[in-house]
Formats: sequence, structure tokens, C-alpha cells
Amino acid sequence: METRNVDVAIIGSGTAGLNARRAVEKAGAQPLLIESGPYGTTCARVGCMPSKLLVAAADVAHEVADAGRFGIEVTRWKVDGPKMLERVRSERDRFVDAVVESTESLPAEQRLVGHARFAGPTTLEVDGHTRVNAKSIVIATGSSPVIPPPFDSIREHILINDDIFDLEDLPGSMAVIGTGIVGLELGQALQRLGVRVVFFTPFNDLGPFTDPEVIRVTHEILSSELDLQLKSEMLEAVPENAGIRLRFRDQHGEEHDEIFEQVLVAAGRQSNIANLDLENTGLQLDDRGRPNWNPRTTQVADAPIFMAGDVNGHIPLLHEASDEGRIAGANSVLYPEVEEHVRRTPLAIAFTDPQIGIVGKRYAELDLDTIEIGEVSFGNQGRARVMGRNQGLLRVYGGRKSCSIIGAEMIGPRVEHLAHLLAWVTQERMTVARALQMPVYHPVIEEGLRTALRDLARKLKVTGKCRLEDFATAPGN
Amino acid sequence: METRNVDVAIIGSGTAGLNARRAVEKAGAQPLLIESGPYGTTCARVGCMPSKLLVAAADVAHEVADAGRFGIEVTRWKVDGPKMLERVRSERDRFVDAVVESTESLPAEQRLVGHARFAGPTTLEVDGHTRVNAKSIVIATGSSPVIPPPFDSIREHILINDDIFDLEDLPGSMAVIGTGIVGLELGQALQRLGVRVVFFTPFNDLGPFTDPEVIRVTHEILSSELDLQLKSEMLEAVPENAGIRLRFRDQHGEEHDEIFEQVLVAAGRQSNIANLDLENTGLQLDDRGRPNWNPRTTQVADAPIFMAGDVNGHIPLLHEASDEGRIAGANSVLYPEVEEHVRRTPLAIAFTDPQIGIVGKRYAELDLDTIEIGEVSFGNQGRARVMGRNQGLLRVYGGRKSCSIIGAEMIGPRVEHLAHLLAWVTQERMTVARALQMPVYHPVIEEGLRTALRDLARKLKVTGKCRLEDFATAPGN
Repeated sequence: METRNVDVAIIGSGTAGLNARRAVEKAGAQPLLIESGPYGTTCARVGCMPSKLLVAAADVAHEVADAGRFGIEVTRWKVDGPKMLERVRSERDRFVDAVVESTESLPAEQRLVGHARFAGPTTLEVDGHTRVNAKSIVIATGSSPVIPPPFDSIREHILINDDIFDLEDLPGSMAVIGTGIVGLELGQALQRLGVRVVFFTPFNDLGPFTDPEVIRVTHEILSSELDLQLKSEMLEAVPENAGIRLRFRDQHGEEHDEIFEQVLVAAGRQSNIANLDLENTGLQLDDRGRPNWNPRTTQVADAPIFMAGDVNGHIPLLHEASDEGRIAGANSVLYPEVEEHVRRTPLAIAFTDPQIGIVGKRYAELDLDTIEIGEVSFGNQGRARVMGRNQGLLRVYGGRKSCSIIGAEMIGPRVEHLAHLLAWVTQERMTVARALQMPVYHPVIEEGLRTALRDLARKLKVTGKCRLEDFATAPGN
Repeated sequence: METRNVDVAIIGSGTAGLNARRAVEKAGAQPLLIESGPYGTTCARVGCMPSKLLVAAADVAHEVADAGRFGIEVTRWKVDGPKMLERVRSERDRFVDAVVESTESLPAEQRLVGHARFAGPTTLEVDGHTRVNAKSIVIATGSSPVIPPPFDSIREHILINDDIFDLEDLPGSMAVIGTGIVGLELGQALQRLGVRVVFFTPFNDLGPFTDPEVIRVTHEILSSELDLQLKSEMLEAVPENAGIRLRFRDQHGEEHDEIFEQVLVAAGRQSNIANLDLENTGLQLDDRGRPNWNPRTTQVADAPIFMAGDVNGHIPLLHEASDEGRIAGANSVLYPEVEEHVRRTPLAIAFTDPQIGIVGKRYAELDLDTIEIGEVSFGNQGRARVMGRNQGLLRVYGGRKSCSIIGAEMIGPRVEHLAHLLAWVTQERMTVARALQMPVYHPVIEEGLRTALRDLARKLKVTGKCRLEDFATAPGN
């Protein structure tokens, strides 16, 4: 067995790992990137990028199907499944190739292929061929889909998001297991592309919301378009010639039996931590085999070990993985000193239609006695009406004492952009008064946000005694 | 003749006038709203709203025509002109009705119908039937389209934006006179709806840009889609049975002769000031008949006269008219004291495709020795590629001394939203460093903005010695 001595060993070459490597090098230390799977990030290979390409095609299909409302008469059209999927793949491959290329262009001495396991506190064994002694180790092994029963026993017959983009054609029907962001994005897109889709979940959740009013509106909107088997129980899944026969109990207790050409399991993801032999580090692990972890330093306990990206189970989003990679890389070199970083304001978006956005403090995290809630329905919002997309609700939270914006949950047209605006002002700790001094064009979706902020201002004025004038003035002078 | 004595007489019941009235009432004074035309604002009746409804239909038509790229095969479709225009009108009427209703529901003693002229410094005569003595007067008479020669002599044969939305069907061909925002928005939309459109301008301008690089890219993009007769000279316009015969000289000096079913004149607007008999106020007027005017107070010279909205020729945008109405209303009551208001950061958007945005200080207003320019091309921007809309350029300006964002010009996909984000951080006087600490999701158009800000940061670091770290940290603790 070969032995390598390096400054920082990084397990995993995804978004977190690549950013950690760069930070290590920037700090003047020597990184080693260890990868067991194919190069290319989860996001580019099987996550955000291909799913957004599928959503983009579905958006176009939806516009075509819906064009009559605008006086655009489409009398003959169809989805060319193979061609549609070909575009998804060719664009995805561009994104993946760019990542792979940048990884493969790294100096050979910075790369090692194989599965790494801990053989000691700072020692790794890679596939039995190399022993790596490192001053620090960054774990950036990402996450994998959870396959719950009864699907775990028929893994080769079902799809996960890794597989779906490699289909040659669209199936006629599909069961989507899970109604979180991934299930909703992919399932709604497939349905708009002509697949008969039924969603299954044992829970009553649709997406990531915690605000009861936003949840209510989300159920209203999505259940009018999608076939949702909420609070259902999956009893059996049997592969047959025509597809997979699902036996399930619906929320009223009635049993059903239906064959789907394909089943997509999108029931959440788990971090790839099980096969690292973490017990050999001597670290204290909880009953799920996880060590203590600090999101501000990315450090594991007080060890020279850092966890960045989806593996730490913190916020499984690309931009957070990227930040954590950089923090982990920097701190892995600084160790035993480590620096605390204040993390960015939380920002999550889902590319369903209407879109979903969550910013800052979520409703579930609020002390309701200290806040007010401003809201706007998109049902009659001007620009939303113009675009024929007037559905949704935005709720924005403000502190009675601070008079500032602290979070929001929303579903509505193009709220990906309102979510950014709100995340930035939340991070700025901007008061509602000041936000109302900002320019808003006409007619734009942002006017809906302003309506919600005015509503919030009125309420804060009463309860919080905030000085709030919505006037034509800009700051300063 | 009847005589009325009021606190504040407001001439015009558009956006500025209505906001002025509300502000006067809020200040505890008695307003009188004088209107000579139909109720309803320019924006709702003939401006932003109906034009955005036309653009929304054109966007759908463009998606349908372009769907094949995504594997969505549309083999038969057409624009149902009458039905398309019917939606434009019915939605427009909703917006107009809401405005008219709110105006008509005002107490009768606050309204007067007729054309107002100054009969003295603070006296108005309305259609010879009423004399109004006011303590202050707010002029909010708006603007009207300019009809240049040779079209001024055949006014009844040509269209302006007021007329176009009342067409029963789309014409087969149309000449659009003017390549400003209104001409481009309407002309591009009509072309995408199947009208053969040719644009004419004696100048070389396309839209409102002043940044030479953004201008270059705009010409590249628009000239590949639109038939543009830039630097052309219109020699003659003769109404005939089949339409209007235009004789023009192109930029190479060659003469042409062509019949268009319709001609749309969108050659700018002029303020409605000529028929007010302003000379009876005793105010000093310039050679265009305009008095001195202060944008921070909306006051005319030191008189108890205020001008708000398009009439003052300042920034003819709805949100500015709204602000100016409120400032004018408040100051008309405070007079002879008046308050200076710091105006919002300039923000202008055009709903062409790609969209156009201008924020804060424009390129032409910059001292190039004190700034740096960051830029991003949307040609290879991730999300823009995903949506198949990867065209455009964003240029953002930063001060070498302040290290902060001071303005931007941009053309690109959905830049209406980037323009808001940039306008808000510009008004906040946010440093580039701080803007780079803000969260940005993936994959979003906002990542393009971040690329431009990183470019700006690099340049400011060299020339301005700005402390700029693009790191994973949020501000504060």
C-alpha cells in the first residue's frame, strides 16, 4: 500500500469538495481530492440543472397548452419526448463537462480515485491501495436518495432523480413517491409534458412550507392541477410486464390497485456518512452515527475534521455547499485555530408553477408574540393578471421591536425574484419603512411585495409603534 | 359664471393628480380635482397596462413559435387577432374601471369637469362656466404623443398608442415611427403576433441606453429580429385605399416606396402645458413656455403652483408621477413652507425581449475617471441557457472611492428583476463587497448579476483599493 502525506485530504469532489480544494490551495497548503464516483457535482449531474431543463420544457408545453386564453390558437401540437429529453441531456452534459474538465485539469498529485475510509483520527485508507495521512480532513461526500419500503426491495425497477434524465422517452404514466421540492418539481413538469402522474405521500405536506396560510393556498392551487394521494399508505409494489403495480390505501381508508409504467422515488435524501468508518476517528457519534458539527466553522467537534455540503445535513443547497466548502477549506488549514463565519440569510426556492420561496426565518421558527405578518394574494395582482398567472400568496414577517423584515414564505408567479429581494433586505436587517422607500416599477410582480410590506407596516405601527411613513422620499441628505 | 374658493385646485385626474388629491385631503385641506378628458390614468388607459397585455400575448406567441427547440412540436397555430385584442381590452377595462370608479366615488364637491386655464396667479377659469380661486394649484395634466411631419398632416389616418388597443383586428403590415421604448415594445409585440413591422427613425437609437457596449449588444440582438430603418429620412406619407404609402430614404441614401396598412407613431411625448395660459400667472417662462421647476419640491419657481407627473417633463414613469403627486399635494398645503424630498433611485424598465433596464446613474452621467465597470454577458449564463434565452449584457458601475454600486444599464432575460435588486442596493449605497455577501440561489438569473459584481470587485480592488472579500460570510453577529 502506498502512503501519502498531505496537508488536507478532501473526500468528495462535488460543489463542497471543489470549493474546499480551492480554499486550501489559496491558503497556501497542499490539498488532495479523493473521489470514488464519477466527477461532476450532484447539482450539474442529477440535480438542479437537469431538473430545471425539464421544468423549462414543461413551462413551454404549459404555455402552448394554455395559449388559447391569450387569443393564440394552437390546434395541433405534441411533446416529442425523445427530442425534449435530448435537449435536457445535451445541455446538462455541457454543465457537467465544464465541471469535470475543471476537475480533471487539476494537477495529478492533487487527485486520488477510490473510496476513502477512516483508519484513524486523521488517516484514510483508499480502496486498500493508498494510505493518506493528513493534517486535516474535509468530508464532502454529499447525499443519496432515500428509498423507503416497499421500493427498497425493487430498486432496479424504480427511478430516482439520478435515472430520470437518462430515459430515452417519456413514460405514459408515473407514480411519484414524495411531495417535497424534488417530487413536486419533477412530477408537475412530467405531467405538463403529457405523462399521467399521481403523487403519493404518507404525510399531508406539499413542499417546504411551515406557514399555515401559505400551506392552505398551496394545497388549493396544486390540488386543482395535480393528482395528489396525500396521507396515503403504500402497501405493495410489484414489478409486472406493463410496469409496476402499486397497491395503496388512500386517506379515506379505501384500497386501490394501479399499474404505473414508471415509479419515481423522491422521498428525501440521506447524507453519505455510513461507509466512512467514522468510528475509527474516536469521535463521539450520536445514535444516527453522526458527530457533533458546527455550521459556523464546519468543524466536527474539536477535531481536525470538517464537513461541508449535503453530507452535514444542514442546508442541502448548492450555494450553501459552496460556502461551506470555502469555510471548511480555510479552517482546515487554520486548524487548530478556526474562524467562525456568519452564514448568509437562508434562501430556498422551488421551480414549481407557481414558484415556491422561503426566506430568512420561517414561520415555524417565529415567536408569534413578537412579530406581525404582512401579506398579499397574487389573485388580483396587476402584473400577475397581465401574465395570466394570478395565483398565490406571499407572507412576510416583521419584528415588532426591530420594525424590520425577518423572513417570508411565498408561493406565486416568479417569486424566485421576490425571494432574492427579500433575502437581501432581510440580511441587511432593513426596516419595513426603509424597504417602502425603495423604487418599484409598474407594472411588476414586485408591486405585490410592496402591498405585503404596506400591510406589514400598518400592523407594526399599531403593535410595535414603529415610525413608518410610506412616502416619496429616498434616504440620506 | 360660478365662483369656487378652494384650498388646492388640481388640474388633471391621472396618477399624479389622484395622488395629489389624496395628499391634500390627508393634510386636512380641501382639494378640487378638475378634469377635461375621460377619467382613468394614461398608464391604465393607453400606456403601461394595455401595452403589457399586448406584450404578454406576444410572449406566448413567441413561446409557441419557438417551442420546437424544447422538443415541443407545434404544427398548427395562429393568432386570433380579434380574440387576442379582446383580452387586451377586457383586462385593460378592468384596470381602467377600478381607477374611474375610485375617481367617481369622490365627493361631488371635490370634482369639476372642464378645461382649466389660468386667469391669474392662483385663479383658474374652467370652460367659461366656473372660476376657481385656490390657495395653491397643482398642475398634473400629463403628456400627449408628438406627431412629427409628415404624419401631423394626416393625423386621422395614423395610429398612436391611444388608438392601437382599440383595433378590432391586427393589420397585415405596420410602420412604427420611433425606436424608443414605446415603439420597440409595441412594434416587437405586433411582429411576434404576425404583423409585418418596419421601424423608422432618423436617429441611430434603439431604446434608452447610453452605455456604448450595451448599445452595441442591443443593436446586435434587435437587428437580428426586427426590420430597422435606422438613420432613415421620411419623405412623404400618403393615405391610399390599401393603407399609407411611405416614401423614405434609407441610411445609404436610397429611396424607397412602400405601403403599410397602418402607421403607428411612437416618436415621443410632449407635456400638456400649452393650453394652460401659464403666461397669466406672471411666472417667467423659458422659450418652450415652461416655468422653472424643482424636482425635490415639485414647486414652480416660488409660486403656490406645483407640477407633478408627466407634465413636468422630468421622469415620465408611473411610480415617479405617483411620488410627485404626493409631494405636490403635501407641499401645496404647506405653502409657503415647502419640504424638499430626496427622490428614489432612478429605475426604468422596458418590456421588450430581451428586457431593458436602467438603474441609478446612467453611463452618460458618469465621470469615467472615478468609476469601474463590471459586466456579464448573458450569452453563456447558466439559467439563461436553461430557459433558452441566453442573450444580453449587463454593465454595473461602481465608485472607486465609495466602493459602492452607483448604477447599471442592461439588456437581458427578465432583467426587470435584476433592475429592482440593483436599484435597491444602489439606493442603500451598498458596497460591492457587501452585495457579494448576499445570498444567491442556483440556478438563477441573479447569478449573472453576481458575476458582474465579482468583475466589478476585481477592478475596484486594483484601482480603488477597496477591501473586497467575496466570502461565505453574512454581516454582523
